[in-house]
Amino acid sequence: MRFTSRTSLNGVTEQQFTLGEIPGVLWTPEDAVGARPLILMGHGGGQHKKTPGIVARAHRFVTEGGFAVVAVDAPNHGDRPKSEEFARVAAELRAALLAGGDNSTQLATMHTFLAGQTVPEWQAVVTAVQELDVVGVGPMGYWGMSMGCGLGAPFVAAEPRVRAAVLGLHGVHGLAETAARVTVPVRFLLQWDDDKVPRVHGLALFDALASADKTLHANPGKHGEIPEFETGSSLRFFTRHLG
Amino acid sequence: MRFTSRTSLNGVTEQQFTLGEIPGVLWTPEDAVGARPLILMGHGGGQHKKTPGIVARAHRFVTEGGFAVVAVDAPNHGDRPKSEEFARVAAELRAALLAGGDNSTQLATMHTFLAGQTVPEWQAVVTAVQELDVVGVGPMGYWGMSMGCGLGAPFVAAEPRVRAAVLGLHGVHGLAETAARVTVPVRFLLQWDDDKVPRVHGLALFDALASADKTLHANPGKHGEIPEFETGSSLRFFTRHLG
Repeated sequence: MRFTSRTSLNGVTEQQFTLGEIPGVLWTPEDAVGARPLILMGHGGGQHKKTPGIVARAHRFVTEGGFAVVAVDAPNHGDRPKSEEFARVAAELRAALLAGGDNSTQLATMHTFLAGQTVPEWQAVVTAVQELDVVGVGPMGYWGMSMGCGLGAPFVAAEPRVRAAVLGLHGVHGLAETAARVTVPVRFLLQWDDDKVPRVHGLALFDALASADKTLHANPGKHGEIPEFETGSSLRFFTRHLG
Repeated sequence: MRFTSRTSLNGVTEQQFTLGEIPGVLWTPEDAVGARPLILMGHGGGQHKKTPGIVARAHRFVTEGGFAVVAVDAPNHGDRPKSEEFARVAAELRAALLAGGDNSTQLATMHTFLAGQTVPEWQAVVTAVQELDVVGVGPMGYWGMSMGCGLGAPFVAAEPRVRAAVLGLHGVHGLAETAARVTVPVRFLLQWDDDKVPRVHGLALFDALASADKTLHANPGKHGEIPEFETGSSLRFFTRHLG
């Protein structure tokens, strides 16, 4: 793990790093001492580790909850090179989006393709970050919407260090078997008027989660329009389960 | 308005009262001085103003939020006499419950029958309680599940003093037109495995609410099994909108 930059803003220290080929960023409280729970955030499709929503949420989680937050570029996203196979899968997804109608199959193909790589990558990132004194070995949380849910659900299902997850903006296609292996407490966010994920597909994914402790929060609005107050609510959820 | 008893416990003063034929109870912070937002709580079918869930919730709202909370017996409930017409409607509902299957029609008939009386009663109670120095005239909230939603939705739709409402555990039958007149912020609680309200009927009532600001919280479990953490969440919802 190699740190490439370190800056501080509004009480939050941001360190960029690379772990092998993976570019990442770690946010911690400025002048933090000692261990704290870690939250891994997965970005959406076409986004990257420092997409504005991730940065804003990370700042609140660090300053209001005292958490450490880490985000990395997914394969073929952000600062990472795009593979030929990704370009082919992405072209099929784009064609389905342009054609209109149901693109659940193409979306599931894309996420299954990426998750094969992200699950082991994210496990390695967590191991490396938890070696730092300011993080430390311990329970962690996961936060991811849309593609961050499509890649996050397999990670949460596979990784026993994850003790609580905020997922959402994703349908059941390609994730039914994975969801049946998710048993930690889950907060699931659904947009009632989602223009990308049919409502019934999102409700079916919430239904498929095996967790005994799971809560669906549905708000009016389109795919990208989760209300700001849900950030505070997610923060309290993580504090309750990791604090 | 005539007060009949006054006791204090754990920082909460409880005053029982009657307003005409309506028996009620008011909870305020012990030694409270000055005005504060009021929350009216509507109890469930077969319950009464001091049913354990109402009392426990009222205590948290008073001690943690500084609110005043009032609850009254619905007609034919608690300390109030039962009318012949109520007995007839209740017998039809009981028969439908025993027969199994869909009892949405009988439930809607019961709630429509009662709401004709509770809306003006509750408006009179709010007016009387808001004349007290420790409450005062101002914005108020409403909380009610199940029958408390069936009677509460018409109250929220009719009463402009209500600025935020927590509703839930109720289906759309008999409430579609009422819901289309509810425009204040609403928190809607739904139990994913509700044994009394079919899931799709509850989702349809949430959908029918005209409020631009509405959030559905769905948790696993049966009709009466709303998790305790939703009380804290409702409290923060009221604080955000009435505080």
